[in-house]
Amino acid sequence: MPRFRMTVEYDGTPYYGWQRQENGPSVQGALEAAVRSLTGESVSIRGAGRTDSGVHAVGQVVHVDLSRDWEPYKLRNAINAHLAMAGEAVAVLDAASVTEDFDARFSALRRHYLYRIICRKARLALEHKRAWWVSKDLDHERMHEAAQMLVGRHDFTTFRSVHCQANSPVRTLARLDVTRNGDLIEIRATAQSFLHNQIRSFAGTLKLAGEGTMTPEDVRAALEARDRKACGPVAPPDGLYFMQVDYPDVIPPRRHLEPEVTQDAD
Amino acid sequence: MPRFRMTVEYDGTPYYGWQRQENGPSVQGALEAAVRSLTGESVSIRGAGRTDSGVHAVGQVVHVDLSRDWEPYKLRNAINAHLAMAGEAVAVLDAASVTEDFDARFSALRRHYLYRIICRKARLALEHKRAWWVSKDLDHERMHEAAQMLVGRHDFTTFRSVHCQANSPVRTLARLDVTRNGDLIEIRATAQSFLHNQIRSFAGTLKLAGEGTMTPEDVRAALEARDRKACGPVAPPDGLYFMQVDYPDVIPPRRHLEPEVTQDAD
Repeated sequence: MPRFRMTVEYDGTPYYGWQRQENGPSVQGALEAAVRSLTGESVSIRGAGRTDSGVHAVGQVVHVDLSRDWEPYKLRNAINAHLAMAGEAVAVLDAASVTEDFDARFSALRRHYLYRIICRKARLALEHKRAWWVSKDLDHERMHEAAQMLVGRHDFTTFRSVHCQANSPVRTLARLDVTRNGDLIEIRATAQSFLHNQIRSFAGTLKLAGEGTMTPEDVRAALEARDRKACGPVAPPDGLYFMQVDYPDVIPPRRHLEPEVTQDAD
Repeated sequence: MPRFRMTVEYDGTPYYGWQRQENGPSVQGALEAAVRSLTGESVSIRGAGRTDSGVHAVGQVVHVDLSRDWEPYKLRNAINAHLAMAGEAVAVLDAASVTEDFDARFSALRRHYLYRIICRKARLALEHKRAWWVSKDLDHERMHEAAQMLVGRHDFTTFRSVHCQANSPVRTLARLDVTRNGDLIEIRATAQSFLHNQIRSFAGTLKLAGEGTMTPEDVRAALEARDRKACGPVAPPDGLYFMQVDYPDVIPPRRHLEPEVTQDAD
């Protein structure tokens, strides 16, 4: 069967998360319903990452097998038309024909996430549900310094949900950068794969570093404790964006919210 | 009575516009209700600009007279708490005590607006209702060139709504810049004041220039025609943001979406 890779954007707010649910709307369910109304097929669409309820995506990547071949741009346009008719907050940004050895999840070399914090006294209006509102000012340089304690290959037991189903808590964090632009603090995280709630656990802990409650050394000690109780409060899903997935031989275009992510040479 | 100036942000989507309405929600109405639930007073809140239904604001400025004096930061926090309780998409960014000769509308030296267009094949998910989706690619340099035909002091009859209530169609447009960042095209407009629908009329006409339907000379001819029928289709409200108002002796802070707006020296 012809296989297609698609890049998908969504506003996570109205969904219970990426994964199909019996009792509520999901992004996977929305895409599968759009394909069903387009081709009549009941397909299973596989994503590179299972985002939680309220988490957004600018560059989730999926694959799907269809019974007949399509011009990729026509497939993208047709699925988007069905998503629009259904009033879904999901869009297919691009589609490509791929061979059957491409798997959105297992072929991924690296995943890129962005976590957005807005520090200001006033509640959020335009960015409500699009960022984490923190009413005290945070020292982003301190946050960046603390973040560097986490980069590299570690046992991340402290920073994963107790519900995480991964066999191993060991991951290699390639990048965890904290930058500031006005009242917006951006945390950019890159790894081949992440544990459940790992980035929201990082964000919650780095916030404590930014307000001075934890020192960078405390963050290192929390990592080394390998104890979930050493983690700061998990940050809300509102600020988290699944930005990009890197695959061999695919050069993604630059997208919205993505000024700094570059394709590494390795 | 003590007078206060406040800077206000809102998501225009759920509102019929800035102005109080008998038959639907308005931003002015939301703010007046928040003050009423806070102090018991039925106040009239005056804004620097009357934005239409669906138009957003990052830096609308208002003034209000209250019966007793307030620490400005306490007033901001209390109004925000009442806006949050009412579930409004409005936030007071800052408040200041001002003298009675300050008027949000009449003291304004310059108003700054941003119009956002996203050019891409896929429908919008994250930016739905936050930008104008244009599915064909636009030449932003051509748009900028065309925009320069409109800068300066002109009779803008072509670019104002037939419902515009201003006495004169003559305005001085200080700036109309078109820039591009990936698939996002930004139009930034500055003038002491604008006519009704003027920026959305500019955006709709510049879009025709960007797709090659109008040349910059055609845009100049449309201006000189002083005829509403020479205007391109009015662009939707979704892409328009009221960014900032300049007053004598007030230096506004840099805000979200506002990387380039600088306070001029004059």
